[in-house]
This record gives sequence, C-alpha cells and structure tokens, in this order.
Amino acid sequence: MAAPELEHLIALFSKLPTMGPRSARRAVLFLLNQKEKQFFPLLQSMQIVMEKVNTCSVCGNLDTVIPCSICSDIHRLPHQICVVRDVADLWAIERSKVYKGQYHVLGGILSALDGIGPEELNIQSLLDKVAVNQGCEIILALPATVEGQTTAHYLYDQLEAYPCTVSALSRGVPVGGELDYLDDGTLQMAFKARRTV
Amino acid sequence: MAAPELEHLIALFSKLPTMGPRSARRAVLFLLNQKEKQFFPLLQSMQIVMEKVNTCSVCGNLDTVIPCSICSDIHRLPHQICVVRDVADLWAIERSKVYKGQYHVLGGILSALDGIGPEELNIQSLLDKVAVNQGCEIILALPATVEGQTTAHYLYDQLEAYPCTVSALSRGVPVGGELDYLDDGTLQMAFKARRTV
Repeated sequence: MAAPELEHLIALFSKLPTMGPRSARRAVLFLLNQKEKQFFPLLQSMQIVMEKVNTCSVCGNLDTVIPCSICSDIHRLPHQICVVRDVADLWAIERSKVYKGQYHVLGGILSALDGIGPEELNIQSLLDKVAVNQGCEIILALPATVEGQTTAHYLYDQLEAYPCTVSALSRGVPVGGELDYLDDGTLQMAFKARRTV
Repeated sequence: MAAPELEHLIALFSKLPTMGPRSARRAVLFLLNQKEKQFFPLLQSMQIVMEKVNTCSVCGNLDTVIPCSICSDIHRLPHQICVVRDVADLWAIERSKVYKGQYHVLGGILSALDGIGPEELNIQSLLDKVAVNQGCEIILALPATVEGQTTAHYLYDQLEAYPCTVSALSRGVPVGGELDYLDDGTLQMAFKARRTV
C-alpha cells in the first residue's frame, strides 16, 4: 500500500517486542508526522547508541565505556558477584539501588526447549573470575522459573570446586502481596523458609 | 541506571504510540542484542525514510515521490476525491482495494477539546481542488465519531457553494456484526438507512 521503503520500516518496527503490524504502522506515522521533533531525535539517538554502546567485556553489561561504569566503579564491593540472566535484569537490580557489588551477565538461561545449553552461556568466564577472586560471594539472581532454577543448580554444581560461597535470592511473599492471590508454590516456599521474628 | 545515551534512546522510544517505559527498554535491549540483524537494518531503513519520504503536495499522502504514486496513477478516476482524516485512514482504504479515485488528507478533524479549528486542517486546498475539478464527487470518509461527523457537516456546508456532489460512507451493521453486541446508535442508523431488497 504505502511506499516499499515505508512498508520495510513498518515491518522492522513490527519485530520489536510488544509491537505488531498495526502498532508499528502507528509508530511510523507518528514519527513521520513529527519529523523534526520525534523522528530526527530518535534517528540521531539510535546512531549514537549504535556507534558507542558495546557489551562490557568484564560483566556483559551494555555501556559506552569498556569496562562499564559499574565494573570500573572503585566504590563497589569487589568480592560480591551477582549472576543475572540478562542486561534487563541487571538494570532492574540497579534501579532498586539495593546492591553494591559486581555483576556477571549469563546471556540467557538453560532451556532445553530453546536449545540453550551451558556452552551458549557465559559460564566459563564466571568460573575464571571466581578462580582469581578468592573467597568471593556469588549471588545467583536468576528467575524463579523452572529454567532459572535449573540454571542456578547447574551453576552451583560448577562452583562447588571453587573457593567461593554461593547464595541465591530469598523466595517468599512479595511486598504488597495478598496471600489470597499467591500461587501455592510461593506460599509453600514462604512457609518452608519462614523466619523467627 | 544505564548509560545516559541509552536512557535517552529509551525515553524517545517510550514516546511512540502503544509503547511505555518498560516496553521501550525491552525494545532497545532487543535491538542491542541483535545489532547486526535488527538494530542496523532498522537504523538504515529509518535513514532512508527520513531522507526520501515526504508529504504529497497534492493529496497529503506520504510517499517517496511527489506527487505520490496514487496522485500520479493515470488509471485512477480523476473525478472522485475521498476526504480522509489522516494517512493511516488513507492506507486503510487502500488496503481494502475498494476505491480507485483520488484522496485528500485533512490532517486531522475538528476538535474543540484539542483546539483544532478549520484553519488547522487542509480545507482551503480541498476547496481549491473542487473549484477546478468541475462536477467531481467528494466522498467524506471521516470517522463515525462526534468530531468526525462535525467535520463532515462543516465540509458539507463549505462545499455547497461549489459545483460538486458530496457523499459520505454508509452507516450500519458492520460485516460479521452480531446485533446483540452492537450499540444502540448503530442499530438506530441501520434501521433508518434500511434498504429494500
């Protein structure tokens, strides 16, 4: 219908997560209707990010400097390494401002369905880090799903031979959680791991 | 949290229709995870569209050629002008392949709430077209909303002085429409405009 160049752009937009053909069309028209105010700034910003942003060779975070601003921050604890699935999870933890150590991005989690085995993940580089960081603490901050926990178990087995302690995020009732709406698995976990107060 | 360049890009993405801060972050990470396969093609396609696509000076459509491929198509009827709100509606009609005439994009509809008066819309250029296209038919294909119908009435009043016929899309039960689920207004319209079969 529209010019092939436009149809091509719409097709590319529709591949973005949460977008479909209709919202991609709306997005492209929105940009074209405000070429100076929206389209050009977005294009410029994308060019800058495309050029400047790279994966940190130390932790796997995305940043404009390598090593990234987290790895090169001397105020962060050097002996804690938080293992996350991807950069989105790393950013989520950073937003919470609750953690002041190092990170290690796995780049995914083990998944038989998606054909992701240990070789596809950044596991060897984690073991190498642990080997030189004697007595460090590895905090497994992986999703509380079957795949996430499978990955956590696998990592725990691998790390046993190394001089480090391994911990994992606690499981239980989330803040603001109504017991009535919680699934049985979470309730069970919360009971098992109950604390004396 | 992330580098300022990344936060800026996420903020720009989150302004797109149907996107919010969370889906914008997911989109940017999706692009950065597949720099060669997704990010670079999208960037290139945006550059091409930014450079090449412009608003047709005749009808208001977006295209790489001016006049646009619809206006310059000699196989299309010259004496029918379909008035639409925006390019999205023009594309919707083109997708249906039901119409083979010319178009005129208003660039919006009258809206007291949004402060859009007749001066903001491409009405004068429509009247100029009608003045030189004696005996043409103006087909008002505007939304069946209060604003859309206000705009249609306004255009009808303006066009009365010109040598043209004015028509509007029929109103009634949409194809596949269950009567039980239709609003009263549509049912009323469908009864009023009933046809002898």
